[in-house]
Amino acid sequence: MAAVRETGSGGANAGIPENAVEIARRHLVQPWPVAGSVGAEARALIDDGEGVYITDGDGKRLIDGPAGMWCTNLGHRREELARVMYEQAMQLSYNTPWYTMNAPAAELARRIAAAAPGELSHVFFTTGGSSAVETALRFMQFYNNVRGRPDKKLILSRGGAYHGSTYLAASLNGRPRDRDWMDGTDDLVVKLSSPDPFRRPKGLDVNAFANLLVEEFRDRIAAIGADKIGAFVGEPVQASGGVIVPPDGYLQRIREICRENDILYISDEVVTAFGRLGHVFASGDVFGLDPDMITFAKGVTSGYFPLGGVVISERLLEELRRSNHPDAMFAHGLTYTSHPIGCALALKNLDILEDEVLAHAREVAPYFQTRLKTLEDLPLVGEVRGLGLMACVDCVADRESKNPLQLDKAVGARIDAHCHELGLLVRPLINMCVMSPPLIITHEQIDTMVAILREGISRTMEDLRREGLWQG
Amino acid sequence: MAAVRETGSGGANAGIPENAVEIARRHLVQPWPVAGSVGAEARALIDDGEGVYITDGDGKRLIDGPAGMWCTNLGHRREELARVMYEQAMQLSYNTPWYTMNAPAAELARRIAAAAPGELSHVFFTTGGSSAVETALRFMQFYNNVRGRPDKKLILSRGGAYHGSTYLAASLNGRPRDRDWMDGTDDLVVKLSSPDPFRRPKGLDVNAFANLLVEEFRDRIAAIGADKIGAFVGEPVQASGGVIVPPDGYLQRIREICRENDILYISDEVVTAFGRLGHVFASGDVFGLDPDMITFAKGVTSGYFPLGGVVISERLLEELRRSNHPDAMFAHGLTYTSHPIGCALALKNLDILEDEVLAHAREVAPYFQTRLKTLEDLPLVGEVRGLGLMACVDCVADRESKNPLQLDKAVGARIDAHCHELGLLVRPLINMCVMSPPLIITHEQIDTMVAILREGISRTMEDLRREGLWQG
Repeated sequence: MAAVRETGSGGANAGIPENAVEIARRHLVQPWPVAGSVGAEARALIDDGEGVYITDGDGKRLIDGPAGMWCTNLGHRREELARVMYEQAMQLSYNTPWYTMNAPAAELARRIAAAAPGELSHVFFTTGGSSAVETALRFMQFYNNVRGRPDKKLILSRGGAYHGSTYLAASLNGRPRDRDWMDGTDDLVVKLSSPDPFRRPKGLDVNAFANLLVEEFRDRIAAIGADKIGAFVGEPVQASGGVIVPPDGYLQRIREICRENDILYISDEVVTAFGRLGHVFASGDVFGLDPDMITFAKGVTSGYFPLGGVVISERLLEELRRSNHPDAMFAHGLTYTSHPIGCALALKNLDILEDEVLAHAREVAPYFQTRLKTLEDLPLVGEVRGLGLMACVDCVADRESKNPLQLDKAVGARIDAHCHELGLLVRPLINMCVMSPPLIITHEQIDTMVAILREGISRTMEDLRREGLWQG
Repeated sequence: MAAVRETGSGGANAGIPENAVEIARRHLVQPWPVAGSVGAEARALIDDGEGVYITDGDGKRLIDGPAGMWCTNLGHRREELARVMYEQAMQLSYNTPWYTMNAPAAELARRIAAAAPGELSHVFFTTGGSSAVETALRFMQFYNNVRGRPDKKLILSRGGAYHGSTYLAASLNGRPRDRDWMDGTDDLVVKLSSPDPFRRPKGLDVNAFANLLVEEFRDRIAAIGADKIGAFVGEPVQASGGVIVPPDGYLQRIREICRENDILYISDEVVTAFGRLGHVFASGDVFGLDPDMITFAKGVTSGYFPLGGVVISERLLEELRRSNHPDAMFAHGLTYTSHPIGCALALKNLDILEDEVLAHAREVAPYFQTRLKTLEDLPLVGEVRGLGLMACVDCVADRESKNPLQLDKAVGARIDAHCHELGLLVRPLINMCVMSPPLIITHEQIDTMVAILREGISRTMEDLRREGLWQG
């Protein structure tokens, strides 16, 4: 499409035009659009960031409530991170991982393995969470092919899960509306129940609910046959499903059943790793698990660079090395696997995390949860739940039914709009608001965040009552 | 796995250890390993880069023959690119594309649309080639679901194709050995012949071969039914398949057949875009095509940052906007979609490309091809072929049969080893060596490259004769 090359407004971002909103409407397709406005919409323009704050196109400063997309863990404008990108780009900006390697990737693999639980020893780097999950699944397929078990490939996933946006990874997602108009494969995936204590069956206490989940897991394996099942993939805390913190002990019991049945346990820590729950990895340090693989992304670079990966157990690699097919090729890799700039940045990010930020995150997390919990006195709020520095405000039509307000009332989006006005970016999820701020957030900033949320929810309640959409 | 945190060697890369090779053997899984050494191998360590050169761990300077992985188009240590990463990281390092947007992404979309052929107007950004292809395919599935044609989903691909390393994208790959131990779906993909003139059926001239390919394309559509086929995906020049330049006019005829049958034509320009063939996009400017979508990656950031995307036709978006399902959601997006640092970097990369480098690439390409062609006097070389700044030296057992030498003779790897010794990094592909240097390569550097290749191939011929593996 022919167009004249325009000159930008100059300044800090030479070449960046002032009419970005109009340009986006004409040329940008953004994530998760609806058909009616695809490629013709604009979203809130963000101009700059600093610490826990971002500034929108109107100059309004907002607390970055969701830390971007669960990722800006060390906050914005961290000069050491910007500098290491510059320095590594001036040293070695790229090398092909097919035939060569670089020192930052090797060292980052060592550091990540050192922080990982159990026998996890090796890292394969990707460009984010979807490609990390795809790598773990393709590795499982390869592993079972080489071990002479080509039928042991089914993948167990759960309602409420979110594992990515490539075809196979997205097939694992558990939210029904993700699939309404999208294709996925049901031949390779088996779905189980979400371990959601808030919406557990009526009449069951949480322990009985956990027993039910474990029983379902065992029964389904028995019905299908363990010789047909390759892996279980699960987030320790289901993140985009609404910050679902599972019942105590449930994950460990699932892990043991996987071990008994030679089913690989893949812990998807794309959200929970790199400090979100106060540790580099949550699987071991928070949940006492030793998975066969852990996937990670997001916080590993605090969102400054697309990097993700899979940590793999020494046991699995050793089994492959001892197999009868030493020439079998794991024909898998991305152009940007082991990217030197991403790995150098992640090393600096990990230094800062371990030296300063993990301790702060652990200190501030209880305050964050306690303060948010005070919002439960608002009648629209069914529950505030969370762990570490991730939480969810779950809005309901009434507390008895716990029914979420219908999608067309867009409660999350309404709260987000009010909070934006008041200085807080919220992540709306249908009837929920997810809060997962940069880990560097202070007590005072938490107070501000919660005060804005209280006001935003209160205004939303007034709107809903006035429009006759809610009688709470 | 517990380990003591070691202190690095300091200097320019503080925290980067000197024993990277040993660390990689213990902690890094690299792309395309074989089972027998997975997670226990080291590859050539690369320490730094400058212009068309990289330097290995022994201090040996090498011409970067494959431009990394077809990507370091502007060369290494380009200070403007390093600086723009720093500056954008200090302005806005990340924003969630789900609810917000940034000006660099909007402006980059405009610039890319301006350079793209036909009605291509909008860009969806991803983190590389695999996710770009996944996006194009998931968009096709969504498009046909919304348009009420849920059975029109099969994807036409070809032998020799390479489209990525996630499950669905990899299912399109045409090299048989990519699939030997890897799973893929055959339910969604139909494979056609590679348009490889060098190994066309004996007795056919190139025109007759092109007619045969077109006939196969028509016949297969007729046999399957156009109402079952959603898209054709093809590289204009098959890159990793061995730089297969198709017969003149073939791509245009395929494009017309797609149009007649309402099959989307997806031109995979992950390798060919951003200067490799002398233009921002090759589809229009080199091949006279107007695809429905173009995928890109690699050269868009010269390998400094994982970025890719899909350019989509205004026509397709308009059809979705006018559909009867305005609320249908394209539930697709990556955390790093529209990344502000990647997009700011790509804008600077595009400035330099358009202002300086495209003209140079067009000027130097004929010299590059002519000089490489002189290697055809070596009896091991069956053909040197290419276009623009991509070429392939195809080694054969003998010129009559054109049979590639067997894999166990590792001819490409042997040539690579000799050339590394002589100062050139080669990309070995079984019996082939692919050459696709940074676009800034000079006439003198091309002379050096070809002289080293001649010596490396000559030494390989001697080795093969001495070992009794080849009688040429």
